[in-house]
Amino acid sequence: MADEPGRLMRAEIAEQPGLLSAAARQRTAVAEVAARISARPPRFVLLAARGSSDHAALYAKYLCEVLLQLPCGLVSPSTTTLYGARPDLSGVLWVAVSQSGGSPDLVEATRAAREQGALTVAVTNTPASPLAGTTELAVDIGAGPELAVAATKTYSATLMALYLLVDAVRGGDGEHAAALGDLAAEALESTAAATGAAAERLRFVDRMITTGRGYSSATAAEAALKLAETSYLSARSHSGADLLHGPVAAIDGETAALAISSAGAGGTALGEVLPRVRAHGAELISVGSLRPAVESLHIPLPGTAEEVAPILEVLPVQSLALRLALARGVDPDQPRGLDKVTRTR
Amino acid sequence: MADEPGRLMRAEIAEQPGLLSAAARQRTAVAEVAARISARPPRFVLLAARGSSDHAALYAKYLCEVLLQLPCGLVSPSTTTLYGARPDLSGVLWVAVSQSGGSPDLVEATRAAREQGALTVAVTNTPASPLAGTTELAVDIGAGPELAVAATKTYSATLMALYLLVDAVRGGDGEHAAALGDLAAEALESTAAATGAAAERLRFVDRMITTGRGYSSATAAEAALKLAETSYLSARSHSGADLLHGPVAAIDGETAALAISSAGAGGTALGEVLPRVRAHGAELISVGSLRPAVESLHIPLPGTAEEVAPILEVLPVQSLALRLALARGVDPDQPRGLDKVTRTR
Repeated sequence: MADEPGRLMRAEIAEQPGLLSAAARQRTAVAEVAARISARPPRFVLLAARGSSDHAALYAKYLCEVLLQLPCGLVSPSTTTLYGARPDLSGVLWVAVSQSGGSPDLVEATRAAREQGALTVAVTNTPASPLAGTTELAVDIGAGPELAVAATKTYSATLMALYLLVDAVRGGDGEHAAALGDLAAEALESTAAATGAAAERLRFVDRMITTGRGYSSATAAEAALKLAETSYLSARSHSGADLLHGPVAAIDGETAALAISSAGAGGTALGEVLPRVRAHGAELISVGSLRPAVESLHIPLPGTAEEVAPILEVLPVQSLALRLALARGVDPDQPRGLDKVTRTR
Repeated sequence: MADEPGRLMRAEIAEQPGLLSAAARQRTAVAEVAARISARPPRFVLLAARGSSDHAALYAKYLCEVLLQLPCGLVSPSTTTLYGARPDLSGVLWVAVSQSGGSPDLVEATRAAREQGALTVAVTNTPASPLAGTTELAVDIGAGPELAVAATKTYSATLMALYLLVDAVRGGDGEHAAALGDLAAEALESTAAATGAAAERLRFVDRMITTGRGYSSATAAEAALKLAETSYLSARSHSGADLLHGPVAAIDGETAALAISSAGAGGTALGEVLPRVRAHGAELISVGSLRPAVESLHIPLPGTAEEVAPILEVLPVQSLALRLALARGVDPDQPRGLDKVTRTR
C-alpha cells in the first residue's frame, strides 16, 4: 500500500492545520445542528463511540458537563445490543461519534435510542454512512478520506466539530476555535525537534503510561491507543487522580510516562501528581502549554483556552507515535491485525 | 507489617464466601434504602467512584441500564472539583462508591450533587466516613476492616451490595444472590489448582491484556488493576468490542490475555473476539462458567445468573494476582508507592 513507511500517516498529520482552519470558517452547518438542539433543550447527554472516537467522546463529556452544565454519560452499546435494554430516553441528547459511521453496534444502539425518544446526532466523517442515516441530525467533520490505519486527522477534526457544536449550543461563536488552524501549524513545526528527541529517548521502551486530568485526560487516552497500535508497546492511560490508587505501583525505572499538561485547572492539578511518578523512577515526557515543575523532556505547545487545548495536544502525540514507530522499524501504515472499520455486536 | 508475604491478602480473599452469605441474609437494610429510592423514581443514574470502586461502578452501570432500564453515566469528579460544574440534577440518582468513603474529591462532588437536587446514596465500607455523612442514603457493605493494600473482599462485597440494591429497586428479593456465598466457597476451592497453574505459566510475563464483554467487562478492568498493582506487570483491560479497534495490534507472542467468559450474552459475544487474540500469538487464560471454543488455560467457575457472575469471577482473579506476585518474589501486602486512601482533588 505505502511505499515509504509512515507516508500516509505523516501526510494526514500534516493536513490538520488546514482542516482545523476550514472547520472554524465553515461553522454554519454545525451552528444549524446546534440550533435544532437548543430548540429541544436536553436534560442529559449520552455519548456513544468506540476506539479513538471514544476518546473524542470523553472530551465531549467534559465540554457538555462544564460548558453546558449537563450531566453526561458514555454509553456501553452492549447494554442495548447484547442485553436488549430499552430505557426511556426522552429529554436525552444522544451523540454518536464515529469516523466511519459504520460500526454495526453503534448504529443499532443509536437506532434504539432514537426509538426511545432521544434527540440523536451523528458526528462522522462519512455523511452517507449508516450511522448518519439513522440519526435526526448529523455533523460532517469534513476531514476527507483517511487512508492511514491510525486515525489522526479524523481525531482532531472530530474534537473540533464537537467543540464547535457544544460552543454553539451555549450560544458561542467559536471564538477559541478560530486560531487553532494557525496554532496547529505553528505547533507541528515548533515541536518537531523535541518530538524527535522524545522518540529517540523512547526507542527501546516497552512500557508506557499516559496521564492527564480534566479535558486533557482524553488526550492521554488517545495517546496510549496511538502508541500501542503503531509501536506495539504496552501503553495505558490513567487519569492523574486514579493513578495514585494502584497503577503507580507498576511504575518503575523501566517505565516511561507521558503527561499531558496544559495551562488551566487540569494541568495544575496534574502537577501535584507528577512528582510521585518521577519518584518511582519513570522517564517523564510532558506535552502541553504548561511546563511541569518536575524534571521532564517537555514538548511545549502554544497557549489556548483550556477547553480547546486537546485539539493541539494530540498533534505532537501523533508525531511522536509516527517517529517512534519508524525508529523501532515498524511501518505505522501497516499495523498488524487492524481493520479500519470494526464489526462487533 | 506482614510476616509471611501475602498473608493479609490471602486471609481477606478467604473471608469472601462468609461475607457474601451474610450480605444475602441481611438484605433488609439495603431493601430499606431501595424503598427510599423507589419512592423518588429516578430518570438517570450517575455513578461516582475511583480506583477499584470505579470497576464496581461499571458493574452497577450495567445493572442499572439492563435491570432498571435507566440511562446511566460514570462521573468524572473533576468537572465539579476542578471546573466548578453545577448541573441541575433533579431526577438523578447519584451513587457514590468508595471503600473508605474518604476520597476528598468524591466527597466534594457528592456534596455538590446533593445541593443540585440529586438523590444521593453512598455505598461504602465505612459507615462513619465523610462520604456517608454527605449523602441522604447509605449502604454499608459490611466487609469489616480491610488490612491488605490490594482491595479484595471490599470489591466483592461492594458488587454484592450494588446488586442487592438494584435488585431491590426493581422489586426483586435477591434470588440470584442467595447462593453466592456457597458458590464462592466452592469456586475458591475448585479453582485453586488451575489458578496455581496459571500463575506458573505467567511467571515471566511482562505484558497482559484483560478482556470481557457486558457485565464481565467490570471484572476485566478490576483484573488489570489487581495484576498491575500486585505483580508490577503492565496490564490493561479492553472491552472485547474495543479490542479490535487498535489494541489488538499490540498483542503478540509475548502477551498474555486474560478473558472473563461467563455463560450469557456477554461471554457468548466475547467468544467471537478470542480467536483474533489467539491468532496474534497471545497466551490465553480464561476465567468463568463458559469455556471458550478457542484453546486456553481455562479456570472454570460454577454457573450463575449472568448479572451476578462478576461477584464470582473476581475470586480466582484475586487468587491469581496473589499467587503470581508470590511467584515473582513480590509481597502483595507491601506494594511500592500505594496508600490505602488516595487524596486527590
